[in-house]
Amino acid sequence: MKLNIALLPGDGIGPEIIEQGMKAVKAICQKYGHDLSYKQALVGACAIDAVGNPYPDETHELCMQSDAVYFGAIGSPKYDNDPSAKVRPEQGLLGMRKKLGLFANIRPVTTFPSLLHKSPLRAELVEGADFMCIRELTGGMYFGRPQGRSEDGNTAYDTCVYSREEIDRIVRLAYQYAQKRRKKVTVVDKANVLATSRLWRQVAQEIAKEFPDVETEFMFVDNAAMRLVQWPKSFDVMVTENMFGDILTDEASVITGSLGMLPSASIGVHTSVFEPIHGSWPQAAGKNIANPLATILSGALMLEYAFNLMEEGALIREAVAASMDAGFVTEDIADGAKSYSTSEVGDWIADYIA
Amino acid sequence: MKLNIALLPGDGIGPEIIEQGMKAVKAICQKYGHDLSYKQALVGACAIDAVGNPYPDETHELCMQSDAVYFGAIGSPKYDNDPSAKVRPEQGLLGMRKKLGLFANIRPVTTFPSLLHKSPLRAELVEGADFMCIRELTGGMYFGRPQGRSEDGNTAYDTCVYSREEIDRIVRLAYQYAQKRRKKVTVVDKANVLATSRLWRQVAQEIAKEFPDVETEFMFVDNAAMRLVQWPKSFDVMVTENMFGDILTDEASVITGSLGMLPSASIGVHTSVFEPIHGSWPQAAGKNIANPLATILSGALMLEYAFNLMEEGALIREAVAASMDAGFVTEDIADGAKSYSTSEVGDWIADYIA
Ligand SMILES: CC(C)[C@H](C(=O)O)[C@@H](O)C(=O)O
Ligand SMILES: CC(C)[C@H](C(=O)O)[C@@H](O)C(=O)O
Repeated sequence: MKLNIALLPGDGIGPEIIEQGMKAVKAICQKYGHDLSYKQALVGACAIDAVGNPYPDETHELCMQSDAVYFGAIGSPKYDNDPSAKVRPEQGLLGMRKKLGLFANIRPVTTFPSLLHKSPLRAELVEGADFMCIRELTGGMYFGRPQGRSEDGNTAYDTCVYSREEIDRIVRLAYQYAQKRRKKVTVVDKANVLATSRLWRQVAQEIAKEFPDVETEFMFVDNAAMRLVQWPKSFDVMVTENMFGDILTDEASVITGSLGMLPSASIGVHTSVFEPIHGSWPQAAGKNIANPLATILSGALMLEYAFNLMEEGALIREAVAASMDAGFVTEDIADGAKSYSTSEVGDWIADYIA
Repeated sequence: MKLNIALLPGDGIGPEIIEQGMKAVKAICQKYGHDLSYKQALVGACAIDAVGNPYPDETHELCMQSDAVYFGAIGSPKYDNDPSAKVRPEQGLLGMRKKLGLFANIRPVTTFPSLLHKSPLRAELVEGADFMCIRELTGGMYFGRPQGRSEDGNTAYDTCVYSREEIDRIVRLAYQYAQKRRKKVTVVDKANVLATSRLWRQVAQEIAKEFPDVETEFMFVDNAAMRLVQWPKSFDVMVTENMFGDILTDEASVITGSLGMLPSASIGVHTSVFEPIHGSWPQAAGKNIANPLATILSGALMLEYAFNLMEEGALIREAVAASMDAGFVTEDIADGAKSYSTSEVGDWIADYIA
């Protein structure tokens, strides 16, 4: 098979973790005889520094021509804490999402037995939790217009907008994933207050009828925020709009204690993007200490979701589990035992695959 | 002193918990020689059933004439799960908030040593957590217009609006509380995406200058959702807009394991409302089993916030602590030991005060 990938390492630890991810992807391609071609481009703060645009046109062109985008992380202290800055790395992220039509951000939340003690939750509450958060990524308040200020600057406004089509495609996706899992969808909204949420609920009620084998649960967003902490095991597939998803998926990502382990996929109209959930950790950049496992697992998602290479994805997962069993991990999850560098972990995983 | 109170017991367990709260308030007034007068009115599902309006005009009139409103809980399964119902109890709640100008919802989050084992978090993370969430309650997406559907019904929209004045008064309140506490304010927003959040941050930055003794921390809402679980002790006073506050205050209310113990105050332009955070628990209505302590503690907040009766409020708190030390509590927090009914706990507290 031919795999045509765009590499967007981004800022901070982005380059070094993507390098490890590519070691694993290359080892897979070698082993299974896939024909891998890839090109690299700038995104984020480094792109602002280089060309004054966090998502340059040539980066966009490259993404459009690729079957999948392998993404590191963006963000730099240089551009933080200054909401009035003219150009910010986040704008690149939002521009990329919109232009590539990345409508569904998918985050599998799983627990790793050896990391359970790092969870802020009591082990018995979170042990075995295994669910999937699906966040709408190109609509809602993030992109709704009008947005801005009154003429005198003393009033500000944002607009949340959703169309039936936008809701339909992502809720449908949630049901399709649920059919392959434990067959339960939790639709999170605020239908007791918002008009957009009432449309979400209406569309979801219609789609639910097409999937009689899947159980549907409607939940208000405030209740979902409580339930994630109180009873995370009650979720299978959760689907929600952009802003609620921003909050809930981040909350969900810390309950397992394995933030450094969680991958994500953003499914698009034109292509799809695969990246770790964690940020660019500028303080660690270049130090060869960052944990590459979330990025490597994002590579597994890429093989599975973008290329339907299920066996290959499973082998990457197996290699990651093996490295953890062997204690061949970076300091953040070594728990005081001997630890290894970013590149050593990447090499170990590639060797295992080979 | 003359205390003029409106009683709004509401639905479900509302009437029986307000009854216990009033026992404590009456005992206080007797002991300290305050002149208590109160009148009762309908709100919520019971008001819909009686007069077709969840917040009847005469209830509003009564509230407007009172120094404080003592509120139970509203909500009934009859009106749940039907977002298309014409009249819903929540509309009464939102109408009341807007008409009474209840702009600031205040929720102190404290832990009770004897309830720590009920927290979903590891005890060492939450032990000693003591912070205050201040949620804007009459602006944002809850009340912004336009809200609705396109003509063909296939697109829905909501509007988030904030004026400088709305932000100023609540952020100022947060700083004033912080001055009496550990002198730290966390302003939660999404200034990297929303125009309203950028106005929040701008106004907060200006107000911060007026309170040089208070430390200011700006935090994105997704980060705050993580931090509440990972490190709740890092908060002192958190202030945020209506929708973010809805989500974060509910998340905050479950981390201590003492949801049944948490009171709230909604500070208004015309009067203020005091109520437990927990809901109307319809299944327990009339059974004399509900925990009245959050309502009794809301009574303490009422004495302190509405009447500036600090000693009286402290005595109610002392009585509640004593009932817990003595194990004279309802089943939900008795931990398998002998437990007491709602009214028995109410009597015990009133006796203690006397
Ligand atoms: C950086 C920010 C704009 C972004 C978002 O809110 O979507 C981030 O929090 C995320 O979740 O990817
Ligand atoms: C019932 C609902 C409209 C309400 C809200 O969202 O404000 C509730 O969740 C609350 O927090 O008091």
